[in-house]
Amino acid sequence: MNKRDLLYEGKAKRVYVTDNEDIVWIEYKDSATAFNGEKKAEIAGKGKLNNEITSLLFKMLQENGIQSHFLKKISTTEQIVQRVEIIPLEVIVRNYAAGSFSKRFGVEEGKLFDRPIVEFCLKNDTLGDPTITEDQIDVLHIASLEEIQHLKRKALAVNRVLSDFFRELGIRLVDFKLEFGKDFSGEILLADEISPDTCRLWDLKTNEKLDKDVFRHDLGNLTTAYETILERLGGKQHA
Amino acid sequence: MNKRDLLYEGKAKRVYVTDNEDIVWIEYKDSATAFNGEKKAEIAGKGKLNNEITSLLFKMLQENGIQSHFLKKISTTEQIVQRVEIIPLEVIVRNYAAGSFSKRFGVEEGKLFDRPIVEFCLKNDTLGDPTITEDQIDVLHIASLEEIQHLKRKALAVNRVLSDFFRELGIRLVDFKLEFGKDFSGEILLADEISPDTCRLWDLKTNEKLDKDVFRHDLGNLTTAYETILERLGGKQHA
Ligand SMILES: Nc1ncnc2c1ncn2[C@@H]1O[C@H](COP(=O)(O)OP(=O)(O)O)[C@@H](O)[C@H]1O
Ligand SMILES: Nc1ncnc2c1ncn2[C@@H]1O[C@H](COP(=O)(O)OP(=O)(O)O)[C@@H](O)[C@H]1O
Ligand SMILES: [Mg+2]
Ligand SMILES: [Mg+2]
Repeated sequence: MNKRDLLYEGKAKRVYVTDNEDIVWIEYKDSATAFNGEKKAEIAGKGKLNNEITSLLFKMLQENGIQSHFLKKISTTEQIVQRVEIIPLEVIVRNYAAGSFSKRFGVEEGKLFDRPIVEFCLKNDTLGDPTITEDQIDVLHIASLEEIQHLKRKALAVNRVLSDFFRELGIRLVDFKLEFGKDFSGEILLADEISPDTCRLWDLKTNEKLDKDVFRHDLGNLTTAYETILERLGGKQHA
Repeated sequence: MNKRDLLYEGKAKRVYVTDNEDIVWIEYKDSATAFNGEKKAEIAGKGKLNNEITSLLFKMLQENGIQSHFLKKISTTEQIVQRVEIIPLEVIVRNYAAGSFSKRFGVEEGKLFDRPIVEFCLKNDTLGDPTITEDQIDVLHIASLEEIQHLKRKALAVNRVLSDFFRELGIRLVDFKLEFGKDFSGEILLADEISPDTCRLWDLKTNEKLDKDVFRHDLGNLTTAYETILERLGGKQHA
């Protein structure tokens, strides 16, 4: 497997094509961004931590029957994955109120919902990733109502496995963001990453934040928080 | 029927209790507000125009099988209606892209959708009337999933009658906002107003705006626009 041209560079990762047109090579960067790119920093070691955490989580999900684009971690900061055409939606699952939900509706962070809820944002940096309803997704031809139901079911299935898994490690899965794409055959596949950049993870006992909110709100050292997550996942702390 | 204490005063109307605890007295004010109260003006004659237009439209809807809180217009600026407990949701129906939809998703104003869509905003001035999804409405206990489906069905029924009615008058119903409430028996009833303050109404041929956007974006004289609507509805222009 050889790395070829850069396909695109995002805020957290670079995606390269390979010899195999159905496989892309993802390189995790050390960049941290928040508030739609307004806040930026380079944080040594972040790429490695997210690559390792994402790889561990996708493997765990696959062992629990949840397929994804993930194929193999090939270095501390790189993995190869199935190439998909990303559906331009952020699929958000919330178990507890936090972040934009708390702000938008004036609800205290940490309030448990009766049931997990799924929300969508349009993945569009120019428009500032606006929230979007299912009917809006449909009439804008971003995905069909059937595909939306499929995305919601998948996202809730990921939530069940992931919440239980983290709870056993003493971590509360508050909310998280997923991305999905269509593979060469048109099948919808879980893609992108699952890491402390894309999840809110709180220590179950102390409610300490162990995710990107540490960076967003200057609550301490990001790598220390991410290392705690990797450590509890059973990965090496200073690999 | 006697008017008693002021129950509450909103941006466009005053609501008074009456001798009958199930009936309230609504007085339409001459105030115009936009952008969540940031832009304000007093426009002589606006209260009368909206009272007359709303009364005509609620009567027309009732003749077409759509019940509402409306009982009777009792003066040029006043009407009596069934008292309800307002469900704090703005129920928005869109036939064409416009306003916040166009801005949010970068879609040209006037684009026709494949089908009408319903959206919700939380009616909360402090929070700036944020958009809210059906699942969010449910987990925040604002309305049940069943009630939400009921609101959507009612709103789409209003849209069918209203769109056809306006089209015959040479007016395009671009979008509109409804409010619903629960009457003394707990039944959900269409309430509030239906006027050029709460609808986008464009001349079918010229696309001239005949609604509050005239005020929002300083496009001309508000009362002239609202008088055009009242005139086409068959109401007197300078009653
Ligand atoms: N399997 C995949 N195939 C193709 N593109 C992918 C895949 N997984 C993730 N991507 C995309 O890779 C890009 C780079 O990721 P990232 O740096 O997180 O970007 P962004 O700044 O858009 O969030 C994103 O557009 C993401 O959607
Ligand atoms: N039938 C009704 N019974 C009780 N309240 C009503 C009824 N119809 C409308 N209202 C409420 O009357 C208030 C005054 O109207 P308005 O001036 O438009 O207020 P706002 O500034 O909140 O939009 C609003 O809160 C509206 O929801
Ligand atoms: Mg990303
Ligand atoms: Mg109002």
